[in-house]
Amino acid sequence: MVAAGSVPAAFAEDGYELWLRYAPLSEPPRSAPRHVMAACSNPSDTLRAALDEIDRATEAMLGAGLPRTDTLEGGTLVLASPDCSDALTGLPLPPAAKVGTEGFAIREVQHSGRQVTLISAQSDIGVLYGTFDYLLRMARGEELTGVNILSRPKTKLRLLNHWDNLDRHVERGYSGQSIWDWHRLPGYLDPRYTDYARANASIGINGVSLTNVNADATVLTPHYLEKVAALADVFRPYGIKVYLTARFSAPMELDGLPTADPRDPAVRAWWQAKVDEIYTYVPDFGGFLVKANSEGQPGPQDYRRSHAEGANMLARALAPHDGKVMWRAFVYSAEEPEDRVKQAYTEFVPLDGQFADNVLVQVKNGPLDFQPREPFHPLFGAMPETPLMMELQITKEYLGFSTHLAYLGTLWEEVLSAETHAVDERASVASIIDGTAHGYEITGMAGVANIGSDRNWSGSIFDQANWYAFGRLAWDPDASAEAIARDWTELTFSRAPEVADAITQMMMGSREAVVNYMTPLGLTHLMGTGHHYGPAPWVDDLGRADWTPYYYHKATQEAVGFDRTETGSGAVDQYAGPVAQEWASLDTVPDELLLWFHRVGWDHELDNGNTLWQELVRRYDLGVSQVAAMQAVWASLEDEIDADRFEEVSAFLAIQSREAVWWRDASIAYWQSVNGMPLPEGAAPPAHDLAYYKALSFPNAPGQGE
Amino acid sequence: MVAAGSVPAAFAEDGYELWLRYAPLSEPPRSAPRHVMAACSNPSDTLRAALDEIDRATEAMLGAGLPRTDTLEGGTLVLASPDCSDALTGLPLPPAAKVGTEGFAIREVQHSGRQVTLISAQSDIGVLYGTFDYLLRMARGEELTGVNILSRPKTKLRLLNHWDNLDRHVERGYSGQSIWDWHRLPGYLDPRYTDYARANASIGINGVSLTNVNADATVLTPHYLEKVAALADVFRPYGIKVYLTARFSAPMELDGLPTADPRDPAVRAWWQAKVDEIYTYVPDFGGFLVKANSEGQPGPQDYRRSHAEGANMLARALAPHDGKVMWRAFVYSAEEPEDRVKQAYTEFVPLDGQFADNVLVQVKNGPLDFQPREPFHPLFGAMPETPLMMELQITKEYLGFSTHLAYLGTLWEEVLSAETHAVDERASVASIIDGTAHGYEITGMAGVANIGSDRNWSGSIFDQANWYAFGRLAWDPDASAEAIARDWTELTFSRAPEVADAITQMMMGSREAVVNYMTPLGLTHLMGTGHHYGPAPWVDDLGRADWTPYYYHKATQEAVGFDRTETGSGAVDQYAGPVAQEWASLDTVPDELLLWFHRVGWDHELDNGNTLWQELVRRYDLGVSQVAAMQAVWASLEDEIDADRFEEVSAFLAIQSREAVWWRDASIAYWQSVNGMPLPEGAAPPAHDLAYYKALSFPNAPGQGE
Repeated sequence: MVAAGSVPAAFAEDGYELWLRYAPLSEPPRSAPRHVMAACSNPSDTLRAALDEIDRATEAMLGAGLPRTDTLEGGTLVLASPDCSDALTGLPLPPAAKVGTEGFAIREVQHSGRQVTLISAQSDIGVLYGTFDYLLRMARGEELTGVNILSRPKTKLRLLNHWDNLDRHVERGYSGQSIWDWHRLPGYLDPRYTDYARANASIGINGVSLTNVNADATVLTPHYLEKVAALADVFRPYGIKVYLTARFSAPMELDGLPTADPRDPAVRAWWQAKVDEIYTYVPDFGGFLVKANSEGQPGPQDYRRSHAEGANMLARALAPHDGKVMWRAFVYSAEEPEDRVKQAYTEFVPLDGQFADNVLVQVKNGPLDFQPREPFHPLFGAMPETPLMMELQITKEYLGFSTHLAYLGTLWEEVLSAETHAVDERASVASIIDGTAHGYEITGMAGVANIGSDRNWSGSIFDQANWYAFGRLAWDPDASAEAIARDWTELTFSRAPEVADAITQMMMGSREAVVNYMTPLGLTHLMGTGHHYGPAPWVDDLGRADWTPYYYHKATQEAVGFDRTETGSGAVDQYAGPVAQEWASLDTVPDELLLWFHRVGWDHELDNGNTLWQELVRRYDLGVSQVAAMQAVWASLEDEIDADRFEEVSAFLAIQSREAVWWRDASIAYWQSVNGMPLPEGAAPPAHDLAYYKALSFPNAPGQGE
Repeated sequence: MVAAGSVPAAFAEDGYELWLRYAPLSEPPRSAPRHVMAACSNPSDTLRAALDEIDRATEAMLGAGLPRTDTLEGGTLVLASPDCSDALTGLPLPPAAKVGTEGFAIREVQHSGRQVTLISAQSDIGVLYGTFDYLLRMARGEELTGVNILSRPKTKLRLLNHWDNLDRHVERGYSGQSIWDWHRLPGYLDPRYTDYARANASIGINGVSLTNVNADATVLTPHYLEKVAALADVFRPYGIKVYLTARFSAPMELDGLPTADPRDPAVRAWWQAKVDEIYTYVPDFGGFLVKANSEGQPGPQDYRRSHAEGANMLARALAPHDGKVMWRAFVYSAEEPEDRVKQAYTEFVPLDGQFADNVLVQVKNGPLDFQPREPFHPLFGAMPETPLMMELQITKEYLGFSTHLAYLGTLWEEVLSAETHAVDERASVASIIDGTAHGYEITGMAGVANIGSDRNWSGSIFDQANWYAFGRLAWDPDASAEAIARDWTELTFSRAPEVADAITQMMMGSREAVVNYMTPLGLTHLMGTGHHYGPAPWVDDLGRADWTPYYYHKATQEAVGFDRTETGSGAVDQYAGPVAQEWASLDTVPDELLLWFHRVGWDHELDNGNTLWQELVRRYDLGVSQVAAMQAVWASLEDEIDADRFEEVSAFLAIQSREAVWWRDASIAYWQSVNGMPLPEGAAPPAHDLAYYKALSFPNAPGQGE
């Protein structure tokens, strides 16, 4: 029921504006500009987008848009680049050595005797990035007097990967259907596409792979390329290139070739012609993202060719157009010859140095599959001759879909800051990714998007933070998850310090809560089969063992965990010496990775004096109580948050709370059925018996593969 | 690109508000109330909804919500019903004989010496309907001094039928996915559900069937009934009952019964228990909508029982709870024994009088399947002992999906005003539906919803008019399509007379334009196979003949059309004498139905002197030019319409224009390939050859059955 005196729905805080709400400032910063100008007579579409954003933001924050001026006055906000400087002579553009092609400088300077704020770069895109940076600082209430900022991205390719099918189903999507309305494209350009591009540009994302990695060759036909081109046209002013997923067997499916063998000249010619055709539709097409020989996808190994041969064939076709191939390392054999988490390393390390210059190998953060916690992927540091991109999953396939509050910034920070010891005694994963460790020529990060047709884009307000954090970390893999969370909170909810503090702290602890109630102590992949919704540690009878939870925990009456030391699969040896040493020893392995690397008895004693079984139950309870604590914090904010968003978050936290209990209870009921142990003292028994939990079914859980 | 000075996106006219925008009034009506009160100390949820709507509307239209008062003052807007009258004595409530249980009166009256506006009814729902009526009159700028309105619905059951699957795919949905977010129910109640209920209540819709008629028994399980109950709770204050589709084989699928035979006692007991269970979740559950023995759905004929036996079994289970069965007459045999359009009549007329009292037979407006034009269904008038509901299709499966502008009010008015001659010399279809012709005890109309997750609900702004018109016609099947169009236009776009005139006229001609460019002169069902997108008159090779366009036109070198006179299928004889006589004769059949009932030579001469072939091509060209005319009218309104909606409609009209040409060209190319005739003088040749049109494919066209 709408409360009396409430405003109409369209004016409610429904989350559509994301972090670009530009909430009114109670008092404008002393340094607020009074005019705006581009330093050229004919600004590009990109600079026009920057000017429009300034209009929009200042109107919302200051109550009136800045008037545009043609002649320099004091207090003018000036946008300038090498392509936009004909209207003012002698503007100090930042040197390319400092900002590169995409970075920017924001400085208060004196020009022609006037005090102005200059946003400048070596490219118009840099200026647009700088404009967003400036406006978002203003939106956070930052004092901009004497501003002097220099920023440049540490990675070159910062991509969203949409796992969107052409029928608008989103694999692992929990926020409605695909925002790509293929049927009404190219005739209808939903204004949402532009707002999507604005949001991405505001956090530096410069590429979008539109289609699912489980690819449909149909997107490579003219009927769809026309639609792809229409999207590319919308995105171009915002510095965003379009990429597509290439189905390896496309030559057979689209044109009836008898083979897709990368050595076959007809196949090579087909791809060359197809790539050339794509560039007639999208002159700045970014390239292909490829999942090959993985989970049923076709690939070069179907013809006994290596991943490198497959990737290089596509790379050769793209090279004349400066296109890239992003070849995914997420491969594991259908025959399960060895520990699944070892296989990508085994497969790819021997290929190091064999890939063409315009190929990147795209590696998930961990060696398994986007779990609440994994060690970093052993490929990071192990392929010095091959640019490795990191692939993160923004959409929460394994962390409670869109209703659980789980800020992933901490997960990503954990992996990026992990020390590989591959080059020097530290060599963080971030330093691999940003190219400094191995001197990669091209660098990048990809995030599997959590964006759908839901009004709030991501299915929940807090999931917007994960989109935001991905962009920020792709720009700077060394950035602080906490600083990012706080910036997002201030932009999204409130600049009031006590509110921003409370929400930031909720976010910072939220992922560990999920780990605790789902998969504590290094347990992993215990989620319901197929949909990955809810607990199902008992599943052990699927077509292939390494798709079952049992494969990952191997619980018996005596022990639990996956031995990945030399007495087991030896996976730990894929890490550099110091890392392998630490994790291989029961004495030094951190509790968080214990059951990932070790198989131990239920009575195994941990550093804190608890047995494994006691600690396991304690962690489940901790997770449940951490969610309750988030609920309490949120409830205390009722007067600080608009009603619509307050209610949505409250409802989702209540769901998370119930599901955390479900995870705890179902897991404990199962472990007890295996180890036959009584509950540790003080622990509450599960609400239902194991049969109850096993009987639950979710035939229409969202986001499944099709 | 967003223009300088534009407002942020959330404040744009994005269509979410529907006809409940409550645009600010340039001057408040002289009679605008100054206070509001409910005539009771403890208003029901329904009256609270009415009060909230008054707040919302007056705040938006008048700039400030009406203050609530406890004591009667002059200029008060008073809400009163038998359940809400304790605060004021002697209020003149309208007699039940005049307003029934759902109607209302709005009158300016003197009470206790004060001039007040009284919205009153025999029920709180009636008051809510009256409140919407009053507010929407104000929103249209109607002068309400001395207001004296009495209104009551002519039908009892006014339902939306959602063809929504549990995975959120909408069969024949062209506006995103289902608005029922089953996964997040019942924990999360999207505010959209409330706005949906408001919109429906504002036009008198009082029932919603939530699920696809191609039914999934899973919705009858507790896991889903809990979700259904949550929706019912949201809808209840708005007078909306929830219905479900019952899969006839549910006892077998859910509980492993060996049969679903309606004579089997175990089956009957299963349904009784299931129905009783449903009522524990939803105490005012409306009942079942059933598609049985049609297009592969299970049904009583699987056991050699009649439709009546099947319906009555469900009716018996529902009767103790006052639930209804809506049994669809859209049946045709998988064996094609006779002309498909005859089969429902053949099947159902012998069952007249055999259905239980709480069964309605739900009949599509025409005997085929929601085509751009059909004659009325011959069952109307032919089942005096069986309440017949009409089923209309609001979603435009066969009329261009959501991008073509086609106002369906005129289509529905055409069928409702058609004279059946079944009782007296006229006996309109409306008089069958509203129960007056045959004295039906229960009456109803159902509309297949065009509502989805798109921000604007219906996929396009103009498709909202079809939702609105359905509600208005269900309330009053004799209402004028033009008056409805005008009301909607004033509420949706503008009260300015020249704008409202122009848009209303566009709408009034729009459906005939579609008929002209798709299926003129009584042609029918020529749409692309399966998805029904675009022309495919050449298709003649599907599994069953009556799913092919060829079945319906039977074009040869000599002639075209389906002979349904006595020399052919004789379908025309299913109509009452005078109707059959008119349509059976080539002299009197209207051109609009010519090829529906007759097979004639290409050189057959029409009243206007044209040959059939000339007239056919002329109509195609007319349709194309009618769309061009709509584009011109719309373009002239640019300064009168907000940018977002102007752009959306312009883009959609451009799509419609291209697709009208596609329809014309593909159709003409095909007819020429059959009749070998040259184009009539002055007619432009198709842009491509027939092979081009035949080669077009649309593998991911939206809305297909699954």
